[in-house]
Amino acid sequence: TIVAALAERMAPAGARPLAGQHVLVSAGPTREALDPVRYLTNHSSGRMGYALAAAAAHAGAHVCLVSGPTTLAVPAGVRRVDVQSAADMHAAVMAEIEAADVFIGAAAVADYRPADIATDKIKKSDGDAEIRLVRTRDIIADVARDYPRVFTLGFAAETTDMEAAARDKRARKGLTMIAGNVVGPNDAFGRDDNALFVVDAAGAQYYERDTKAALAERLIAQIAERLADKTGQRA
Amino acid sequence: TIVAALAERMAPAGARPLAGQHVLVSAGPTREALDPVRYLTNHSSGRMGYALAAAAAHAGAHVCLVSGPTTLAVPAGVRRVDVQSAADMHAAVMAEIEAADVFIGAAAVADYRPADIATDKIKKSDGDAEIRLVRTRDIIADVARDYPRVFTLGFAAETTDMEAAARDKRARKGLTMIAGNVVGPNDAFGRDDNALFVVDAAGAQYYERDTKAALAERLIAQIAERLADKTGQRA
Repeated sequence: TIVAALAERMAPAGARPLAGQHVLVSAGPTREALDPVRYLTNHSSGRMGYALAAAAAHAGAHVCLVSGPTTLAVPAGVRRVDVQSAADMHAAVMAEIEAADVFIGAAAVADYRPADIATDKIKKSDGDAEIRLVRTRDIIADVARDYPRVFTLGFAAETTDMEAAARDKRARKGLTMIAGNVVGPNDAFGRDDNALFVVDAAGAQYYERDTKAALAERLIAQIAERLADKTGQRA
Repeated sequence: TIVAALAERMAPAGARPLAGQHVLVSAGPTREALDPVRYLTNHSSGRMGYALAAAAAHAGAHVCLVSGPTTLAVPAGVRRVDVQSAADMHAAVMAEIEAADVFIGAAAVADYRPADIATDKIKKSDGDAEIRLVRTRDIIADVARDYPRVFTLGFAAETTDMEAAARDKRARKGLTMIAGNVVGPNDAFGRDDNALFVVDAAGAQYYERDTKAALAERLIAQIAERLADKTGQRA
């Protein structure tokens, strides 16, 4: 709108530190079908990713949010692309990545999917059973490898030895920045606060427990600083 | 309240055909944990079970609704017990069954659960993987076997040869009545209408496509008739 355009021009430059930048965010869980009724998923609520999308939009960025199934509303000023499976999410991210300056992988993407998807509902039988699983493609690692100009922020959600896992994951995937959930994924999922251990080329920082909205604003501010001074682009 | 009590006494008897009866309904999906973050589930929205609980309450019954995770509100006059896994749901149903005259198994209970639940999030490795599954206990079959005085209504959701599957399931589990989803579970889940193929000792009936609320009222009316004339209690 004209009013919004005027407000944008009149806002102090510092208030819109991501003006002109394109930020792509993934959020929420994925669903990996076993058959028409059953699927494998996880407890991600999508809140951290949605908070990051909202904070990036607030900072003036063009924001595209690739989202697995959640009950959350699309944040103001954000364009959302809805997906179900890890393969859908990979395809949607790759379709949007060319335009992106920043990719934030906040989705809890399934690491594995069932090897076969049955067309009809699988009938139960008396005995035990097993599901054969195959690895899904690693979305953020593919982005970091194929689009090295893109600033990448990933998340680590291991329940044991989180700091070492976060540092290792950042190095292994070639990410610009990583944020480890300090409270553990079973606590972090579904609640509205968290604490983060954030690592980039400049070092590690501890973000004290706060709401996901406040943590998201702080992460977005840190990304904007890094883009401005062009330090910490690669490990 | 006094007003409600008066209204109940003044209503024509036919309007509250389940007055004094205790109806126990299960609804929604179950979630079977693999580890603190991942789980196996299904697309059940819980709408049919919630509609049946609402219709039973409207017909004057005392209604307890044992519900897996859904986004639905508790219907007026219904007491809800929230559960997650198939084992939780089995325990909750068995804790309530002594008082029940009718058990409606409308939940989409997982047939299988992972054999092991990891305490920490399972780390991914490079290769493929598999999940060993074991059968869960069959809640409605256990109710029919151990509480033969209870009127049982089950649902069949097979995608192939539904009529034969429904008749077979009713006989095998010893249910009083069974309703087969004519449109198939992948269509029925999440939408607000359905068509049913209903079988009891008196024969089979086809319920034409209608809203789940209308189908639920018709099923509850049929149960009330059967309880009144005490026919069709067992196959």
